[in-house]
Amino acid sequence: MGNTFGQLFRVTTFGESHGGGIGVVIDGCPPRIEISEAEIQRELDRRRPGQSKLTTQRKEEDRCELLSGVFEGKTLGTPIAILVRNKDARPEDYSEIARKFRPSHADYTYEAKYGIRNWHGGGRASARETIGRVAAGAIAKKTLSALYADFELVAYVTQIHEVTAKIDRSTVTMNDVEKNVVRCPDAAAAKKMISLVEQIRDAGDSVGGVIECVARGIPAGLGEPVFDKLEADLAKAMLSIPAAKGFEIGSGFAATQMRGSQHNDAFETRAGRIRTTTNNSGGVQGGISNGEDIYFHVAFKPPATIALEQKTVTTSNEETELVARGRHDPCVLPRAVPIVEAMAALVLCDHALRQRAIAWSVEALNR
Amino acid sequence: MGNTFGQLFRVTTFGESHGGGIGVVIDGCPPRIEISEAEIQRELDRRRPGQSKLTTQRKEEDRCELLSGVFEGKTLGTPIAILVRNKDARPEDYSEIARKFRPSHADYTYEAKYGIRNWHGGGRASARETIGRVAAGAIAKKTLSALYADFELVAYVTQIHEVTAKIDRSTVTMNDVEKNVVRCPDAAAAKKMISLVEQIRDAGDSVGGVIECVARGIPAGLGEPVFDKLEADLAKAMLSIPAAKGFEIGSGFAATQMRGSQHNDAFETRAGRIRTTTNNSGGVQGGISNGEDIYFHVAFKPPATIALEQKTVTTSNEETELVARGRHDPCVLPRAVPIVEAMAALVLCDHALRQRAIAWSVEALNR
Amino acid sequence: MGNTFGQLFRVTTFGESHGGGIGVVIDGCPPRIEISEAEIQRELDRRRPGQSKLTTQRKEEDRCELLSGVFEGKTLGTPIAILVRNKDARPEDYSEIARKFRPSHADYTYEAKYGIRNWHGGGRASARETIGRVAAGAIAKKTLSALYADFELVAYVTQIHEVTAKIDRSTVTMNDVEKNVVRCPDAAAAKKMISLVEQIRDAGDSVGGVIECVARGIPAGLGEPVFDKLEADLAKAMLSIPAAKGFEIGSGFAATQMRGSQHNDAFETRAGRIRTTTNNSGGVQGGISNGEDIYFHVAFKPPATIALEQKTVTTSNEETELVARGRHDPCVLPRAVPIVEAMAALVLCDHALRQRAIAWSVEALNR
Amino acid sequence: MGNTFGQLFRVTTFGESHGGGIGVVIDGCPPRIEISEAEIQRELDRRRPGQSKLTTQRKEEDRCELLSGVFEGKTLGTPIAILVRNKDARPEDYSEIARKFRPSHADYTYEAKYGIRNWHGGGRASARETIGRVAAGAIAKKTLSALYADFELVAYVTQIHEVTAKIDRSTVTMNDVEKNVVRCPDAAAAKKMISLVEQIRDAGDSVGGVIECVARGIPAGLGEPVFDKLEADLAKAMLSIPAAKGFEIGSGFAATQMRGSQHNDAFETRAGRIRTTTNNSGGVQGGISNGEDIYFHVAFKPPATIALEQKTVTTSNEETELVARGRHDPCVLPRAVPIVEAMAALVLCDHALRQRAIAWSVEALNR
Repeated sequence: MGNTFGQLFRVTTFGESHGGGIGVVIDGCPPRIEISEAEIQRELDRRRPGQSKLTTQRKEEDRCELLSGVFEGKTLGTPIAILVRNKDARPEDYSEIARKFRPSHADYTYEAKYGIRNWHGGGRASARETIGRVAAGAIAKKTLSALYADFELVAYVTQIHEVTAKIDRSTVTMNDVEKNVVRCPDAAAAKKMISLVEQIRDAGDSVGGVIECVARGIPAGLGEPVFDKLEADLAKAMLSIPAAKGFEIGSGFAATQMRGSQHNDAFETRAGRIRTTTNNSGGVQGGISNGEDIYFHVAFKPPATIALEQKTVTTSNEETELVARGRHDPCVLPRAVPIVEAMAALVLCDHALRQRAIAWSVEALNR
Repeated sequence: MGNTFGQLFRVTTFGESHGGGIGVVIDGCPPRIEISEAEIQRELDRRRPGQSKLTTQRKEEDRCELLSGVFEGKTLGTPIAILVRNKDARPEDYSEIARKFRPSHADYTYEAKYGIRNWHGGGRASARETIGRVAAGAIAKKTLSALYADFELVAYVTQIHEVTAKIDRSTVTMNDVEKNVVRCPDAAAAKKMISLVEQIRDAGDSVGGVIECVARGIPAGLGEPVFDKLEADLAKAMLSIPAAKGFEIGSGFAATQMRGSQHNDAFETRAGRIRTTTNNSGGVQGGISNGEDIYFHVAFKPPATIALEQKTVTTSNEETELVARGRHDPCVLPRAVPIVEAMAALVLCDHALRQRAIAWSVEALNR
Repeated sequence: MGNTFGQLFRVTTFGESHGGGIGVVIDGCPPRIEISEAEIQRELDRRRPGQSKLTTQRKEEDRCELLSGVFEGKTLGTPIAILVRNKDARPEDYSEIARKFRPSHADYTYEAKYGIRNWHGGGRASARETIGRVAAGAIAKKTLSALYADFELVAYVTQIHEVTAKIDRSTVTMNDVEKNVVRCPDAAAAKKMISLVEQIRDAGDSVGGVIECVARGIPAGLGEPVFDKLEADLAKAMLSIPAAKGFEIGSGFAATQMRGSQHNDAFETRAGRIRTTTNNSGGVQGGISNGEDIYFHVAFKPPATIALEQKTVTTSNEETELVARGRHDPCVLPRAVPIVEAMAALVLCDHALRQRAIAWSVEALNR
Repeated sequence: MGNTFGQLFRVTTFGESHGGGIGVVIDGCPPRIEISEAEIQRELDRRRPGQSKLTTQRKEEDRCELLSGVFEGKTLGTPIAILVRNKDARPEDYSEIARKFRPSHADYTYEAKYGIRNWHGGGRASARETIGRVAAGAIAKKTLSALYADFELVAYVTQIHEVTAKIDRSTVTMNDVEKNVVRCPDAAAAKKMISLVEQIRDAGDSVGGVIECVARGIPAGLGEPVFDKLEADLAKAMLSIPAAKGFEIGSGFAATQMRGSQHNDAFETRAGRIRTTTNNSGGVQGGISNGEDIYFHVAFKPPATIALEQKTVTTSNEETELVARGRHDPCVLPRAVPIVEAMAALVLCDHALRQRAIAWSVEALNR
């Protein structure tokens, strides 16, 4: 009972990696938002495996079908259902995992929780589950653009293993990000990352890294203290992504080594508006957006599937060894970029609608 | 509309720092759990200001009153309401903040969101708001103890500014934590932390740090993929705490620099049970607890209130300066320890009840 | 876990009839709505027992205290907590019900559900629980008036036992309703009702009846198909009131004996607006308000507490007899009028905010 | 944002009458419940149009496809998605309703709410929307049978227009109900109903009626006061069904003309269990089931679509006339029977899981 996200822009995903298909129902999308299958497909293609040699070579076409909620190119205000069929199922690849729990995968925990699991693949724990999120995110982005003229949302890889990038977060665009296969807009770092991932892949191993995401053009006022603070909902959204291990807003963990006098963002007046001189807050103060760029980082662990032999136990509690077969990613970061964007869009869109509900003036509504 | 936390063990807090009082309503607590005002008060006393020279010298008695939901020492299954009166209000201290936005506080964002704010203090953004969370956490802990015989929950300070501690997370107890005023069970590090905080306080500045929290005795099976993964709800809970900037589960950000072969937690059989040899997962795999210790870190920024002059703007958009007066904490970490514990208990208790609802066997229920 | 009502205007009540007090927390009320304790008290006084000889002679002062969420006479957008202390507790009156289940009361079902109950009175099943609803309803009414200039909400008794009234629902006002102690604006019927209730009371028995409620000035567009249709949420709201047994919207059960050609509400144009010539729909079509008056009926059973001897069983499963003592209402209808209004206001206010969240134009928002 | 029903057994429906398809996602179904497409199809076939001459002659095959959440014939605990394709779309039938609002349909209110509507048919307001509910209801019934050995749920027509039936609610079975095309187990009354509906159909008109539903084998303890009382959630569920106008639990509106001494259900001991001698309460006291049969009535209005000329207005506000074409039901009652059952099953199943979550003992859990 945890497959719905959001209070007003409400997204419910369904589907296992193997079975009839993967999809999503979006309830609460405002009416009259222009959206097409092509726009949704564009985002899904960014998430799709097989985009480059860095990612798994599975061929998943992942064609989306818009089943309901859109009429003559516009949302109806009714539930929007999107379905992507499963095609490339090869259950024989998975016969071993029917009886051996893969280390740091979810096989054991699903078995413990439900007393049953679909061992024809990763089930709901498969990265394939994120298709529904990305499709919903495409619609959330369109809605946010309809609400806020200056809205922009960009995510990108800033670190893979020990290679870090230098990126100007206030100007970077999605075009910059899409220029290379690791989705790192620092060309020099990207080159090193690519070569590192290839080397790791050849060694049968895997690596993790960090994604940064920035949202621009969000007005002051989004976020619902005390529990549904904007950063709290962003944290939840990000930690719900497979392989995510950490989240930080603004200065994040670095703030723990700063003094208050260094960390505080002084207010000033710029172009007639109240602004901050620095942005250690990451665009959120007291759980509410302050009109500055909202930015945060997400840490991803190295993928659990590796080609090296590992110790594990069987479903009958006997110790054994496992060598992963099948086609997998040595590094999830590049494909996680559109997922991070999608989840950020879901949070922002939900909070945009929540703020509209209580906006105390038309001006407040349109800020 | 963000003041309720949890799906089944449902906590709603209310109250500003100034006004009639602060409190909480807990709906969904199972019946027949033993609880007393004294047990709740004990937790509130750990959160209370004025415990040591390190924290604000405000005298807040913070006596809780159990208004409903408990009868002859046991929960009724009906809503439990707890009220703590506000007493030490000195609105004159706050006259300046009626017209000047304090940097990195929530004055500006509340004004932008609601078009009104209670400038007699920090309103809902005050740390005083956490009283309701801590009271509810006391009841969540009792419920978890009733459900799981081996349940233990301990949080402690592992870092203040650049001083870090060395703590054995698998054995540390609350007694160890309560031995010193910084709530750091490493005595040597604690001593350095205390002297650092005193020095920072005397300089009119503030510092942040890191709290680690570990939950032991939680069975495999808690957590509701894909959005309400256990670490996702923990992340949300932690980022909803005032001054929290980051969260990481298990290996966290460190995982970004590990290889899969280093990071994976191999399974083995110990004492007839399936266990992992390492615990980089932090007790959660695929969003579901795996029976190992659950642990995570929370990053806290330095408090925004400092005694040094800062640039800011007035409510009429004019640039000005501000020097904080009043009584404040140079470091929130020690007092944040019981708050982190409380929020962790709320998440775990909620997920324990959610798992009971679908448990596929009595054994599954009682694990 | 059923003590919260509403999605955006979210009301959580707490408190047993005996214990520290009864109250409510309202989360999601828009900011800057003017409200005072006096306005809330006025509604509570209409609900209070002891208003006339027709109702229980318990003296409950029921003074409300506004604990939070209001500042200088306006809502802050933060949770509004309201507390009413319990005063007139006389547990000795209730010693018998500690061991005997009162027929058609909730003693047995609470015991079966929770394995424990507060037998110092009716606990949460007491009509006293509705204090929180009425207090919240007062704020919902103010919010609706702020949103819709022509908003009016009036409930009144149309039937007690076999005495029925004739009332023009399109013009009746609260003043008309408050003119007599049975809250029936048909003076002749009211007189008969009063004499009937007195006679029933003297016989130690009780009677039920019907309340009609009409909301005027609600624009077209409120209601969220397919499950949260306006009439569905109204039905839930009404059936959650103690002693309510039935609900019908518009033509209701009478519609079952009409033909489609009689029942359909033809559209016409009046004063430039689309209107219906009749209103069998009760102001709701397809679950959404159509701009006509919204009206519905609620059936109430005769109160379970009577002064006549009844058969029952003890908590140890032995058959026995019971004669109610204590002070009780022979007819709940007059006091239920403000409760019906309050619940209707909660539903309408919640849906007003929900519609604002997705309103597709500023005009749509302000209709 | 009103397309999800339930707290723990959570059903989200999607789809318009015209478009890609109609479906449902069920989140929160316990794992290991046996279910097949055939069982779901059986319920869908009972809802399907074209079953007899009494209902619309549209040929809708309505084959369901189980997309996810079931593995080797058992639920996985993950979301169950079910899709039924739309096939028999004939948009030309609907060209007139693109510009004329049909009286007592939802055309006008959808337009007012959303500023857009799918005029290729009734959109979400079409009875076709209930396919998702019936599919979900089939799974809820299986879950309830797994939880409660004696669980039975039967609905049937007790009144059409002025023809009423006499049925023994404590013994009637689904077999009795399915014996005739009006689903009325009183053979004599059924005959009169059939002839009445045929006559009404030939006159181009329509009629309404009443459905009774009884649930047997539900233990004491289901229902969550004070807002989510069992009868409150049933009322909401029933009023969310297209064409429903009223709901009553147990004695219902008839209770308004009874005295307390007649209405109260005395307790007695039968076969060692606490029982009531009568059941005016309808199996629910204080919002919680008491172990007796739960029964209620739902009033349905005559369908809005009739073959007679009616006054209406166009989308450009001009008065005009309309004669419905297309294929429609003169009486929805027979096809509404499985829908009433489905919604009742959803409410009961949700409350069964909610009660499990807080059950205070294993015995309480298994009652």
